[in-house]
Amino acid sequence: MKKTLSVGLAGSILGLGLLAVVQAAETKPEDVASYRQSVYNIIGWNFKPIGAMVKGEVPFDAAAVARHAQYVELMSKAAPEAFAKGTGPSVVKKTEAKEEIWTKPAEFDSKMKDFQQEATKLAEVAKGGDQTAIKAQFGKTAETCKACHKEFRKD
Amino acid sequence: MKKTLSVGLAGSILGLGLLAVVQAAETKPEDVASYRQSVYNIIGWNFKPIGAMVKGEVPFDAAAVARHAQYVELMSKAAPEAFAKGTGPSVVKKTEAKEEIWTKPAEFDSKMKDFQQEATKLAEVAKGGDQTAIKAQFGKTAETCKACHKEFRKD
Repeated sequence: MKKTLSVGLAGSILGLGLLAVVQAAETKPEDVASYRQSVYNIIGWNFKPIGAMVKGEVPFDAAAVARHAQYVELMSKAAPEAFAKGTGPSVVKKTEAKEEIWTKPAEFDSKMKDFQQEATKLAEVAKGGDQTAIKAQFGKTAETCKACHKEFRKD
Repeated sequence: MKKTLSVGLAGSILGLGLLAVVQAAETKPEDVASYRQSVYNIIGWNFKPIGAMVKGEVPFDAAAVARHAQYVELMSKAAPEAFAKGTGPSVVKKTEAKEEIWTKPAEFDSKMKDFQQEATKLAEVAKGGDQTAIKAQFGKTAETCKACHKEFRKD
């Protein structure tokens, strides 16, 4: 479990069109998994209040939506580097990531890109402040979350 | 431990000049602490490789530095909402946050602003790609981390 990853996670990332990522040589699989969980925690933290607003559970606040959507977009772009090879459930105990992420990289890549694309649109639409448009784009983004979780995340 | 925070963390944030943050009514103290840990995890994830580069431990990559510095800046701006009242060690078991964060809010606020300011400068300097300037500004930013951790984080 103390196996270290080789220098430069970039080489082990699933070809997701990222900038090169240089991590120190001693990055452990557990650290990557922890980073992964942090990224998705922050996505959820920011995505949920948008959902609460478009559902009318809390008052709509255009500035808050724009800010939250920006973080969702930015974290969607940070997400791919959190899926370095050798950080799946066969190596890391505490992870909800399924091995299929690494055995079906093209499918995972496609789902990740869908999410990034819709999250980027959500951030754009959110800047405009149009509540109806935001609601529609929130729904589209949420679909990409579900589609990926269904296939690649443990229940 | 299942006590819920009131709607709108904004009211319980330490007056850190944030935009209003609307969270769903059922945000638990543990969720805030978890978000807090995620924010700092992502800060560390991005800050460390800049350090490794300015120290010459890994090859300097201007694009990677700029990207990492941008995430440090953005997460520094996300950090204040992670310190809602009622999420300290008297309520949340698993936290390194000291109670002093909430008993000395002006001091904490000041340290947080120092960090945000230097992180913002780091992101600016990083865009320029000047390795000497980046190294200097990395050092200044690291000082603000240490200063805050010394006073407000458990060892």
